[in-house]
Amino acid sequence: MPDLATRFETNPILRPAAVKPSREGLEVVCLLNPGTFRHGGKTWLLLRVAERPRQVDGRISTPIIDPYGPGGITILNYSLSDPEVVSRDPRAFEYQGKSYLTTLSHLRLASSDDGIHFTVEDAPTLMGQGELESFGIEDSRVTEIEGRFYLTYTAVSPSGIGVGMTSTEDWKTFTPHGLIFPPSNKDCALFPQKVGGEYLALHRPSNLYIGGPFIWLARSPDLRHWGQHRCLAWTRPGHWDSTRIGAGAEPILTDRGWLAIYHGADENSRYCLGALLLDKDDPGKVLSRSYDPIMVPTAPYELTGFFGNVVFTNGHTRDGDVLTVYYGASDEVICGATFSIQEILDSLPLE
Amino acid sequence: MPDLATRFETNPILRPAAVKPSREGLEVVCLLNPGTFRHGGKTWLLLRVAERPRQVDGRISTPIIDPYGPGGITILNYSLSDPEVVSRDPRAFEYQGKSYLTTLSHLRLASSDDGIHFTVEDAPTLMGQGELESFGIEDSRVTEIEGRFYLTYTAVSPSGIGVGMTSTEDWKTFTPHGLIFPPSNKDCALFPQKVGGEYLALHRPSNLYIGGPFIWLARSPDLRHWGQHRCLAWTRPGHWDSTRIGAGAEPILTDRGWLAIYHGADENSRYCLGALLLDKDDPGKVLSRSYDPIMVPTAPYELTGFFGNVVFTNGHTRDGDVLTVYYGASDEVICGATFSIQEILDSLPLE
Repeated sequence: MPDLATRFETNPILRPAAVKPSREGLEVVCLLNPGTFRHGGKTWLLLRVAERPRQVDGRISTPIIDPYGPGGITILNYSLSDPEVVSRDPRAFEYQGKSYLTTLSHLRLASSDDGIHFTVEDAPTLMGQGELESFGIEDSRVTEIEGRFYLTYTAVSPSGIGVGMTSTEDWKTFTPHGLIFPPSNKDCALFPQKVGGEYLALHRPSNLYIGGPFIWLARSPDLRHWGQHRCLAWTRPGHWDSTRIGAGAEPILTDRGWLAIYHGADENSRYCLGALLLDKDDPGKVLSRSYDPIMVPTAPYELTGFFGNVVFTNGHTRDGDVLTVYYGASDEVICGATFSIQEILDSLPLE
Repeated sequence: MPDLATRFETNPILRPAAVKPSREGLEVVCLLNPGTFRHGGKTWLLLRVAERPRQVDGRISTPIIDPYGPGGITILNYSLSDPEVVSRDPRAFEYQGKSYLTTLSHLRLASSDDGIHFTVEDAPTLMGQGELESFGIEDSRVTEIEGRFYLTYTAVSPSGIGVGMTSTEDWKTFTPHGLIFPPSNKDCALFPQKVGGEYLALHRPSNLYIGGPFIWLARSPDLRHWGQHRCLAWTRPGHWDSTRIGAGAEPILTDRGWLAIYHGADENSRYCLGALLLDKDDPGKVLSRSYDPIMVPTAPYELTGFFGNVVFTNGHTRDGDVLTVYYGASDEVICGATFSIQEILDSLPLE
């Protein structure tokens, strides 16, 4: 099935080997899902860098942040023959009935003059901090609002998976704003401007028993406190987005409304991209939604990797009609692709 | 095991048979978990009234609110021999992989001059409304703040289980404030006053994979938008509160701090009550927590019923040292018990 993406010829544009581990004894296993922004004439990616100790046959080891220590980490190390160790998938395992991730993620900047060739910084930009981020921070969205950059990201800890936020003007000093959405929540995309006098965010609560991993809209007077939650989009049984959906980066204002790129996964955990069109003045109103995906994992680096058959985006830049989407492929490498915004809009079912 | 509760001699104080169904064709199956407040010289309970059509052998039927209709309901009716019907427990079932409740709950006032003998109103006070409440509203907490009553309640729909809020001064006109915590969330108890310049709430998000049904604290400038979430209390493996915990009614200000009654369930879904003591000036700091429960299902009406072995509270009144707790027993009847606040405080492990 052809899709609407024009992939960079240089894909993947960043691989784990291009990135220095944050400390001795760790290796960078995956680069994932970069937040994206422009600043100082450059295009920047805020990469999710996933690390772990080099694995030894017959054992599993993973780093966690010591929530009470000054930037320290602890390495957990278990024998795979221990019946208390249960491997779930490449991303997570259980020990004594408690869940752990196989890697610890931090966020790190990479910059580029042309949006294609990126240089990764040598050290982490943001590490998880405190007891709500002891299993790391992941999948940042970067939105510039009123001259300040707001970063929403997935905060993981034994207490659950929620959405943390921090902000910066200069990318040197950050102001933490705490956890803005409690567990289970991720995939939070802030709108770049107020609509109807309020700040808005797409987010993705997950549910037990009733409901599911759907896309919701929330409203805020100050970006730090959120309410008036409503469900905007549900998974669609039998479709490419049947089991979970979540917003990409900030929605894009077009003549026809807010265009929100989202990811959808099916029963086989194939992750594709699609689009939602939201009313310009009342984004709580969904005008249209992709019937077919606008991007499907098809390139070799999208089909095979740490967790294959995945294209996942939470960062893009826009130049007129051209939307450059940066995405994680197979949970392992960073890639880019361009879309025509008009083509995406034209692909949406009539309102 | 003796507990700290002195049960009313008249327990249960309200049974389903005492309550008129909201419409022809429905029966009241259970009375549950009342919010409690004082107003106009009376003690009031805001009961959760759970209804369904009278059940017929071999079939299961349940009402749902038509989210688009003007107060209408639809009756779903399935054969139990349909392989698409999967019964989970008395409270829920699945049809074609989707979850439904076996009853539809609304909220209804009952009033009393002595706090023991209650008269239930003939009609619902609040019914679920709109697409986020189509499976009903449950388990209200009523908190008087600055002369206005704020009701937080569980809003259930196919989109998930979240926390809705409405407010009133006269109990005739209500101002809805929307969903204040997205799914999965319930057991939201507002503090009766600002602390450190902010409104506070205990709430209970539930998690997938990592985390669990723990008690969290959130902060708000306006009661409608919430942030700065932190986890306060976790389940305790091997204890009476090993599988899920959630706040009761509003925390009680004492000399030693905020006393919060909570419920805890174990692997056998036995629900007991315990207490948390939170710092007076920073309720994000837990000073102490019950080692043993302060109330355990032991009376016959607590051991057997629609869902037995349950004491569950979300409403109380206070008169000096006497805390009168109203509670749902076995998810079927309403009961009352008194506690000495000092005795609860004395029962807490040393800080």
